[in-house]
Amino acid sequence: MRLLPVLEGLHSAEAFNPGFLRAFLERTRALEAGPAEFQDALAGRVIATVFEEPSTRTRLSFESAALRLGAGVISVADPKTSSAVKGESLRDTARIVSGYSDLIVWRHPRDGASRLAAQAAQVPVINGGDGRIGHPTQTLLDLYTLYREWGDLAGRTVGLMGDLRNGRTARSLAWGLALLEARVLQLPAPGLAWEASFEQRIADRAGYALRHVRHPLFRTWTGEETARVLEPRLATQGWLFGDGVPLLERLDALYLTRLQEERGAAPRDGVYPGLRPAHLADPLLEQCLLLHPLPRRQELPEELDEDPRARYFEQARNGVLARQALYLAMLRAERWPLPELTPLPAGHPDAELGVCPNPNCITRAEGIPVPWRVAGKVQRLFLCAYCDALLPVDYAGCRSTLRLHPLHSPSVARIHPENLRPFRAREAAQRQGYTWSEA
Amino acid sequence: MRLLPVLEGLHSAEAFNPGFLRAFLERTRALEAGPAEFQDALAGRVIATVFEEPSTRTRLSFESAALRLGAGVISVADPKTSSAVKGESLRDTARIVSGYSDLIVWRHPRDGASRLAAQAAQVPVINGGDGRIGHPTQTLLDLYTLYREWGDLAGRTVGLMGDLRNGRTARSLAWGLALLEARVLQLPAPGLAWEASFEQRIADRAGYALRHVRHPLFRTWTGEETARVLEPRLATQGWLFGDGVPLLERLDALYLTRLQEERGAAPRDGVYPGLRPAHLADPLLEQCLLLHPLPRRQELPEELDEDPRARYFEQARNGVLARQALYLAMLRAERWPLPELTPLPAGHPDAELGVCPNPNCITRAEGIPVPWRVAGKVQRLFLCAYCDALLPVDYAGCRSTLRLHPLHSPSVARIHPENLRPFRAREAAQRQGYTWSEA
Amino acid sequence: MRLLPVLEGLHSAEAFNPGFLRAFLERTRALEAGPAEFQDALAGRVIATVFEEPSTRTRLSFESAALRLGAGVISVADPKTSSAVKGESLRDTARIVSGYSDLIVWRHPRDGASRLAAQAAQVPVINGGDGRIGHPTQTLLDLYTLYREWGDLAGRTVGLMGDLRNGRTARSLAWGLALLEARVLQLPAPGLAWEASFEQRIADRAGYALRHVRHPLFRTWTGEETARVLEPRLATQGWLFGDGVPLLERLDALYLTRLQEERGAAPRDGVYPGLRPAHLADPLLEQCLLLHPLPRRQELPEELDEDPRARYFEQARNGVLARQALYLAMLRAERWPLPELTPLPAGHPDAELGVCPNPNCITRAEGIPVPWRVAGKVQRLFLCAYCDALLPVDYAGCRSTLRLHPLHSPSVARIHPENLRPFRAREAAQRQGYTWSEA
Repeated sequence: MRLLPVLEGLHSAEAFNPGFLRAFLERTRALEAGPAEFQDALAGRVIATVFEEPSTRTRLSFESAALRLGAGVISVADPKTSSAVKGESLRDTARIVSGYSDLIVWRHPRDGASRLAAQAAQVPVINGGDGRIGHPTQTLLDLYTLYREWGDLAGRTVGLMGDLRNGRTARSLAWGLALLEARVLQLPAPGLAWEASFEQRIADRAGYALRHVRHPLFRTWTGEETARVLEPRLATQGWLFGDGVPLLERLDALYLTRLQEERGAAPRDGVYPGLRPAHLADPLLEQCLLLHPLPRRQELPEELDEDPRARYFEQARNGVLARQALYLAMLRAERWPLPELTPLPAGHPDAELGVCPNPNCITRAEGIPVPWRVAGKVQRLFLCAYCDALLPVDYAGCRSTLRLHPLHSPSVARIHPENLRPFRAREAAQRQGYTWSEA
Repeated sequence: MRLLPVLEGLHSAEAFNPGFLRAFLERTRALEAGPAEFQDALAGRVIATVFEEPSTRTRLSFESAALRLGAGVISVADPKTSSAVKGESLRDTARIVSGYSDLIVWRHPRDGASRLAAQAAQVPVINGGDGRIGHPTQTLLDLYTLYREWGDLAGRTVGLMGDLRNGRTARSLAWGLALLEARVLQLPAPGLAWEASFEQRIADRAGYALRHVRHPLFRTWTGEETARVLEPRLATQGWLFGDGVPLLERLDALYLTRLQEERGAAPRDGVYPGLRPAHLADPLLEQCLLLHPLPRRQELPEELDEDPRARYFEQARNGVLARQALYLAMLRAERWPLPELTPLPAGHPDAELGVCPNPNCITRAEGIPVPWRVAGKVQRLFLCAYCDALLPVDYAGCRSTLRLHPLHSPSVARIHPENLRPFRAREAAQRQGYTWSEA
Repeated sequence: MRLLPVLEGLHSAEAFNPGFLRAFLERTRALEAGPAEFQDALAGRVIATVFEEPSTRTRLSFESAALRLGAGVISVADPKTSSAVKGESLRDTARIVSGYSDLIVWRHPRDGASRLAAQAAQVPVINGGDGRIGHPTQTLLDLYTLYREWGDLAGRTVGLMGDLRNGRTARSLAWGLALLEARVLQLPAPGLAWEASFEQRIADRAGYALRHVRHPLFRTWTGEETARVLEPRLATQGWLFGDGVPLLERLDALYLTRLQEERGAAPRDGVYPGLRPAHLADPLLEQCLLLHPLPRRQELPEELDEDPRARYFEQARNGVLARQALYLAMLRAERWPLPELTPLPAGHPDAELGVCPNPNCITRAEGIPVPWRVAGKVQRLFLCAYCDALLPVDYAGCRSTLRLHPLHSPSVARIHPENLRPFRAREAAQRQGYTWSEA
């Protein structure tokens, strides 16, 4: 399988880098300032929206963006009429639809589906939301909504609230915030926090540290007065002067999310927390922008819609702009360049590692052994190359020295990622000629 | 909530006025004569069709009209993939879709949904059919079909036949015919006539009188030889010379409708009447145009399709033209002005009046207390501002004099509508400082 | 009912003729060479895709083709939202949709639906696949895929493999191959061969003979080493020198098809044959192009995708081009002429012949007595004019001489088809004045 080249697809917020995001935000602002110039920029092009999981708003936003640039749209809006009904593989569908269009937007219920579709397709594929792991264009519009207000995001504190575990929008946004040097305050509903390995990956990639802050309001939202915050390692000396856990004094934005009931999510004590009108009087939220990927439930009552801090409808509107900017970068790169994205290595399917441990991974549906990739600088991890699930790997070998180490050995961090090789058992490694180096 | 401004939306045929209709008919004819001029009139615009109730023909007609003017179309065609599945309110959906488009066409199973959507949306909303109460663009194309044949409609007699109670097309058309001074002959299937209050509202608004005419054919269609006709008060002296109920000699058009089975309708005696080839030989129908909103059932047999009086397929075709004319008036008003519509006041939700008595009203689904508006010149009525249901109001107060009257008191007709205030009980009014004036 | 004029519709590969096909192939190649020239060729036109049977790929291909020529698209993609839900006849839907569009692509689960829709519609109708009998645009793209490789198809040997009985693509392709003088090798799965009358019609029309060839691989695919081949009568003297059934030495293309499970198909012994990687090493397939209309199942394993002989994804891509060429011929005939198609006579519904014997015929759903047409030069057949089912006719009369003959009498072949009249019983003919001529 090939690596995904730059801007041949957009699959994961994890693949963003600061240069890409900053250029994207500036270009989106330019587009907002002068949309008429681009009215026919994609005339004659056809964009396909393949939505194998229902999502009216996302689909309409992508389609509106295409039409406003003069492109045509072909669409699969109803999963029950899709080719999967005739038992076709995602890869076949991707190959075929790429014969009909110049770019495909794919939404799929399986984790990692977008990457797999992109490998099969002959045209760029944008992830319109796949499974539980990512929704990168949502992140782009979320970031643009903040950028329009603030310019630079560095040093801002953004709270992510609600069902962090199951929602893909908050996960994707966390990557984006960290890359732009904003603080990521975690306000999960009870029992719905991220797994530690996800937090660790962000911290490792962005050079962030995990700290704690407190505020009485947090107890209402998460059940505890203390919350975890990811922030640049060097930028937070202020906290050190506090006695114990410092008090958070100002939140710049609060990103609310709904409970992902359709993924079986439930809060630990049966109550899903939300923002209440009374909370808005607290000094913590005095200048706090309110965002929500929508649709909402009770966590964001309609009484707040008229509040001057509410940005969630503007946020939805910004989605059209953000997607227009992406289309232009992908289909008219000669006029509208964006810096390269670091492609995530896609790895080779590895029969020895068996199937992906994530039952919702696209590789399980397609019958592919799990392909792996290396993540982490300080602490190496092996992840499924499609769904980012942590693989149950206990040993790492170095292809160059043929030495085998326990995964958590400090030696492993010194091996170049391209030389790393995962093993579940020492015997398997030894059969391939690796020798044990840390007896 | 704000009043609906002129041509920011089109929700009800009741809001039409003669000036608007006449200008619309003329402009539609101009469009038919020279469509090429408008081929790119809406280039760069995006029109959304949100159909939360299936209706292939109406959706396709609206979409074809948009495309023929150069606009793009985004569409929600399948209720099961809509946001309502995620539990979103109509108002939120309207706000969001209006961030993606320049105009929304909305079809919804709930009465009054279009008005509520328009209040939330930031762009114009056209009612593509909501619940049981109205289908104003169908009326525009019906009127255009007659206008193309006749020019002026004044003095023409148009029979409305079938399930008048449950069909929204015949109700909407009745308003349009009355405003253009045509006679409205009611030929309901047994047990499926309009409620008296609806007939009364038309008569009151248009200055019409209710009279009766007879013809042997009526018995076949309605079970009775005598039928009710609404007609201009002054235009019918001819009838006075007859002995008892006069015989109708000529019907200019017959508008057939099907039984609304999906709304639970059933004719009283189990038989739904229809037109038969033999009827067409009757002198009454000699020059009678045959219209039907389609789809049809047995009430309009296929044998009649080749009859030179049949206009129902042409009528469907005219829908594209009528919708093009509307789009132009709403999105290119500087080039294509139409006179103002009288906005229907939307009223404030009134907790004291409780919930709307119509179980299918959109306010019931959205959890809003019923907002009211005043209708009627001679006999004041309080209606639900969304679904037009008659509210159970027994007393009316005058905000200016703080006097309270029984609703049917002649004094009430002399109070300016803007000063009227509805009450269900004298005590509630007295608590607000009204004094009883007619002991 | 009227005859279907030239290129007012495209309903059946049987209606193709060699001149049409050759001109189509050349023009499609010209379009592929210079697509930019046609980018706005259909600006202002609206094409409707009405898919009453789900088929994502075919719909997207037709829609992409329309958009790439600048046309707009209106679409019915979900059968459950179609007018049929309100009980509308196909003819009414066709009349109405033709008021909204300039051309309709229709897919329908009933045999012959496309022809019936075309008769009712006011605009050209293209068969996007109806029932079990035909899929003519698939044939055009299949032929184009071969033409791109070979130029002339004459003398080439093409194997059709799999569920020949129930699949419409192989049936349609057989007509096209025969008209272009290619050999049609039948490789049906056990129990899933064509009925003899279908094979006979092709042979009769194209002047082909039925012969047999053998190859050991055939046994794997069909259960028998000998296979039937249709080929030009004069071009096969080579075979005569063999001893018994000659060995086939070279197959130029193999067209695989999947089992039509949704039509209740099942192979005789429960095993559906397919191509295996090992087969590709056989000299028979050394230069054999691999085609498949897709979606595929196990009959075409993914391991073959990288084989240089695989053409099935290119084949799918060619569908857009083929459909563009058709649209241009139908909507811009002044710029893009194609030779005339021989219209199939549609016949008059004939109450005496009763209902069509094919339970899936569109006439059964619409309640129409079966209309007939005459097929065959050597052996006259009476077929249902919609679904091509063989009608149970035992006698043929001559309208000119009023003589009645047994259908298989040699005299019948000498009567001009327009004078032929079918009868199920001698008595019925005699009542109409025919006299028995062959006692």
